[in-house]
Amino acid sequence: MTLLEILEKKKKKNSLTEEEIRFWIEGMGKGLFPDYQISALLMAIVLNGMDEEETFYLTDAMLHSGETIDLSSIEGIKVDKHSTGGVGDKVTLILAPLLASFGLKVAKMSGRGLGHTGGTIDKLESIPGYQVELDRESFIKQVNEIGVSVISQSGNLVPADKKLYALRDVTATVDSIPLIASSIMSKKLASGADFLFIDVKVGNGALMKNLEDAKKLAQTMIQIGNRYGKKTVCILTNMEEPLGYAIGNALEVEEAIHTLQGTGPEDVMELIIKITGLIVSKTQDISCEEAEQQCFKKFNTGAAYQKFEEMVKRQGGDLSRLEISNRIFSVRSAKAGYVTKINALGLGEIARKIGAGRLTKEDKIHYQVGLLLHKKVGDFVEVNEELVKVYLDDKDIKVNDILDCFTIEEEPTQKEPLIYEIID
Amino acid sequence: MTLLEILEKKKKKNSLTEEEIRFWIEGMGKGLFPDYQISALLMAIVLNGMDEEETFYLTDAMLHSGETIDLSSIEGIKVDKHSTGGVGDKVTLILAPLLASFGLKVAKMSGRGLGHTGGTIDKLESIPGYQVELDRESFIKQVNEIGVSVISQSGNLVPADKKLYALRDVTATVDSIPLIASSIMSKKLASGADFLFIDVKVGNGALMKNLEDAKKLAQTMIQIGNRYGKKTVCILTNMEEPLGYAIGNALEVEEAIHTLQGTGPEDVMELIIKITGLIVSKTQDISCEEAEQQCFKKFNTGAAYQKFEEMVKRQGGDLSRLEISNRIFSVRSAKAGYVTKINALGLGEIARKIGAGRLTKEDKIHYQVGLLLHKKVGDFVEVNEELVKVYLDDKDIKVNDILDCFTIEEEPTQKEPLIYEIID
Repeated sequence: MTLLEILEKKKKKNSLTEEEIRFWIEGMGKGLFPDYQISALLMAIVLNGMDEEETFYLTDAMLHSGETIDLSSIEGIKVDKHSTGGVGDKVTLILAPLLASFGLKVAKMSGRGLGHTGGTIDKLESIPGYQVELDRESFIKQVNEIGVSVISQSGNLVPADKKLYALRDVTATVDSIPLIASSIMSKKLASGADFLFIDVKVGNGALMKNLEDAKKLAQTMIQIGNRYGKKTVCILTNMEEPLGYAIGNALEVEEAIHTLQGTGPEDVMELIIKITGLIVSKTQDISCEEAEQQCFKKFNTGAAYQKFEEMVKRQGGDLSRLEISNRIFSVRSAKAGYVTKINALGLGEIARKIGAGRLTKEDKIHYQVGLLLHKKVGDFVEVNEELVKVYLDDKDIKVNDILDCFTIEEEPTQKEPLIYEIID
Repeated sequence: MTLLEILEKKKKKNSLTEEEIRFWIEGMGKGLFPDYQISALLMAIVLNGMDEEETFYLTDAMLHSGETIDLSSIEGIKVDKHSTGGVGDKVTLILAPLLASFGLKVAKMSGRGLGHTGGTIDKLESIPGYQVELDRESFIKQVNEIGVSVISQSGNLVPADKKLYALRDVTATVDSIPLIASSIMSKKLASGADFLFIDVKVGNGALMKNLEDAKKLAQTMIQIGNRYGKKTVCILTNMEEPLGYAIGNALEVEEAIHTLQGTGPEDVMELIIKITGLIVSKTQDISCEEAEQQCFKKFNTGAAYQKFEEMVKRQGGDLSRLEISNRIFSVRSAKAGYVTKINALGLGEIARKIGAGRLTKEDKIHYQVGLLLHKKVGDFVEVNEELVKVYLDDKDIKVNDILDCFTIEEEPTQKEPLIYEIID
């Protein structure tokens, strides 16, 4: 067997066997294949697809390319949540402590920002002192004691995905449902939780640009989860406009705190309550509606926020030192009307350029910079009224680039729902 | 502009602009792009295609990636002939001197064997002393004086093709009509002839496996030729079974000599006369039939063979020292019947393995080895009658591998024509 034969087969749109897929992933781990063959194979997969069996074998081969985490010493139901990535998506920051306040166990490994989408780990690092790296023992101890810990992914978790992702990123081979599904699921399965919840973002600010693809990705991931006997639930949510008002690391932590205190933006609150209701009702003997109602109690009594504070403190973070840049300027609307569209991808790219994300792997994040929207789709804006506050550091910005991300019209349009569908 | 953007575009099946294609080929020449991006782009082209415009710009960018040959100091009509490659294809060895005997000028640069197909330069090198490398001045002088010279391609002729071909060979991205057409035509256009004749081989022993693809390739090459104002004619010929009886370098030179003397195998004679008739009638004031008739005169008077002898001598070769291996064994038929199929690809691979071709770029050719068929499709064979004579050197062979290349049945089948079509 050679990788060239495997390439030839996929080029002709034939299905690869389990043996062939393992040969590829294992050989890649040993450094046996040149990148130019792997990238050609990735392009053939993007264009010719992979069936359910192939996707499962790819996930399994990747899952076994490195270490897997054993969470069995944590008592209770271990839940994991993943988002396919969006702009302003601070859900993990809120959801992890909230779920812990329900008695669930959240031993969560998160990633850094990719492209125009932010990463939970970068956001947490905007809290001075917060340690994203814990040794395995401390991690498990913390989850056993307070119910929650969010740390960065171990270097040896699914190394095959790291290798493939680095190559996909520079060869235009990211947008393939089997490749995305196997990448996400191999990491989730390696992380050892009992219950997987995946938020599949849909829209111009997300990897999945339309509902049909998002549905297919969700179904593919659920099929994989089922084959491992892992309960997997997906939610399809809108990423046409950013989630909430805040884009940028410290700004998003602030918004997460407001949400944990029950005063977050309407869409963030809606999404958090929906997801929590689903996860709690599927893992505990309580209805979805009841669980949703209990969320408000967790906010109002301070239980949710306290859990967050506890986690941050345990990991060395000091919330009193969270800083937002004081070099602020306001972008104001040039005309009056209804906001009918906000380009999430565009704003994500702008946030990235001013330092909230990375343009190259080596770039350092500027935690205090970002954008704070003052208007969302459906809102009315007056001439000269503030649309966005920009928090800058050393990098400059073009005002028109920001204005171009807003579509303002005389008549309001029907607003897209925030939550499209739940698939399980 | 980045190569990644170009990749993204082709992945989405969009057409690349002239500017984008030049950016790719020129940047590649400067070593600006990693192989893994180029190979992913090649796979995207194989699967998503290229339109007429793109193929033209690719050809043009490749053509200008290195030096081009100026044949203007050669008087008369300069003709060039190319074959897309087959098994036992010794046409250039015969055609070049034959055309010169008609007063045409053949300043020909040929290639070495690729995969299971032989190369004219390897065949000529089986003649002891034959120099395949001449400086530009001697090359042009020889063509001016005797009408013909066949040398190996200059190292700096279309370097972009060399780079791309090396990558295509190891990434399963050879079989793409736009890539094949631009590779052939860039080299032919850089070689400076006035008239291009291309033999597109069709069948299991060829790159083009079916007539439809072969036709498309021919039309693509003719379109490119026309855009340069170069008369380009294609012939589509059968490569289901090997051409002639001989496969292997010195063996093929011997068969070429027999053909130049009018006693070659029926199919080789038919093809040579047809091609010569076409080229001569399209470049001189004489009908095709008349030109075909004149071929026999060139054979019978010795004019054709003398031209070959003259060329070989001028380039230092000594035909009296041409050697065939004397380690011969005969493969005999296990049953009686009609030969209904001969697997050209299979025999080509066997010839390659015994040393007539290369398995890796570094391998040395064994000029004296090869296969000599005793039966062709349509022939009747008795039990134990000789099918093939094998000329070996240090490498061994499995008899069954050779027998498996022959299909012998009780009833003869309709023989495929040798010449399918002429396209111009």
